[in-house]
Amino acid sequence: MAILLSNDDGITAFGLQALSDAVATLDEIWIVAPDRNQSAVSHALTLQRPLRIEQVGERRYAVDGTPTDCVNLAINGILPQRPRLLISGINHGANLGDDVTYSGTVSAAMEATLLGVPAIAISQLGSEPFDFGTAVQFVHQLAATVLRDGIPADTLLNVNVPDGAASRIKGFQLTRQGKRRYSDAVVENVDPRGKKYYWIGGGEADFVAAEGTDFSAIHSGRISVTPLHLDLTNYVSLQSLQSIQIRFP
Amino acid sequence: MAILLSNDDGITAFGLQALSDAVATLDEIWIVAPDRNQSAVSHALTLQRPLRIEQVGERRYAVDGTPTDCVNLAINGILPQRPRLLISGINHGANLGDDVTYSGTVSAAMEATLLGVPAIAISQLGSEPFDFGTAVQFVHQLAATVLRDGIPADTLLNVNVPDGAASRIKGFQLTRQGKRRYSDAVVENVDPRGKKYYWIGGGEADFVAAEGTDFSAIHSGRISVTPLHLDLTNYVSLQSLQSIQIRFP
Repeated sequence: MAILLSNDDGITAFGLQALSDAVATLDEIWIVAPDRNQSAVSHALTLQRPLRIEQVGERRYAVDGTPTDCVNLAINGILPQRPRLLISGINHGANLGDDVTYSGTVSAAMEATLLGVPAIAISQLGSEPFDFGTAVQFVHQLAATVLRDGIPADTLLNVNVPDGAASRIKGFQLTRQGKRRYSDAVVENVDPRGKKYYWIGGGEADFVAAEGTDFSAIHSGRISVTPLHLDLTNYVSLQSLQSIQIRFP
Repeated sequence: MAILLSNDDGITAFGLQALSDAVATLDEIWIVAPDRNQSAVSHALTLQRPLRIEQVGERRYAVDGTPTDCVNLAINGILPQRPRLLISGINHGANLGDDVTYSGTVSAAMEATLLGVPAIAISQLGSEPFDFGTAVQFVHQLAATVLRDGIPADTLLNVNVPDGAASRIKGFQLTRQGKRRYSDAVVENVDPRGKKYYWIGGGEADFVAAEGTDFSAIHSGRISVTPLHLDLTNYVSLQSLQSIQIRFP
């Protein structure tokens, strides 16, 4: 049995090294991570081309694919047996609110969940160079807890750690996923040959202030732990739509 | 006001043309779609490089990015005003159960939902060459209904159409998202230079038989309509985890 680590910032990221250091004493560590930055690739799976796996150290592999590819190949092929736990991160930056649907970090944990392996995604707020000290301390304790007690089936834990020294963090809070407020954030530019190109994003991150959300926990200086699942059904709408009138056939 | 169309099979796909024909009489149609096949790219957003937009016809644009990029650029830049509705598809193949988390088709609808635009994702089961006749008929009626009555906020409709002639389809059913049963589906091979490579997938699609799911509707010859949202919080686990004991700080 072992702990599998992955991320979306790529195998050379400092956050992944910090994660490895954090949990090294808990069990045998295997790392299978993208060979380059794969941020915002979401739950993308590579089906159109074959994948290459390069061994880059003892129990350490780089894949020319997405975080989802890495976790799939690790669990279905690279590891000699199923891991006890997958941890993805430590991401360089937040994965809060609706943004989890874009996140490569969270998607690695989704893939493990789909394959029946308990999973944690962990992200550090702030900016480069990130201080992973608090996240390292917390993820060690959280992983130890999960290895001992388990987590509910079909559930992953999405962890976000506020910026700042551990001494200033006011503990952790179990939260629900918050909502982002999106802005028109496309930047248009012109290349040296006079052709237009476009950048997505760049708008300020803004969120709907609401009690009990991941955003509000971070805002009040707490580590946010959100249990996520992969059932996207809106059960409230499923009820309200029963009266829908569609002329078919 | 207009209807925006996108997909993940690319701007030249027959399914997109069929969709355009299906809803052409309802409102002005704008198409913004990937310039090539982007299946299984999930909700990936391109942040690491700029995007190019090529106009390929009247109100018709190809983007060198993902379905999510297309919908974001369309709503935040290309269209002169917000569309009344986004429809993504008709996908060449199913988007059922947990597979919606991988789906480019569904993710295009997610992006519209995040940007406050009502959205439908529609997928046709079967194999190439697909017969989109039933899907065309149904999506026309469904779109007309949504334009007239709206859909609940923050909700998209994920539609899957069984293979077969419209006359054999037994109506439609409102469903919840089912669960796939995953198999060890990595195929190893060796290239002409003796280096190994790997393909993900290829295992038989199998699912947990359960009443009221998208899978069971399709299995019984009905069109499945699943209301999805982007709140991944597992509220049941959020309750049960209140007793979690983590030694921190």
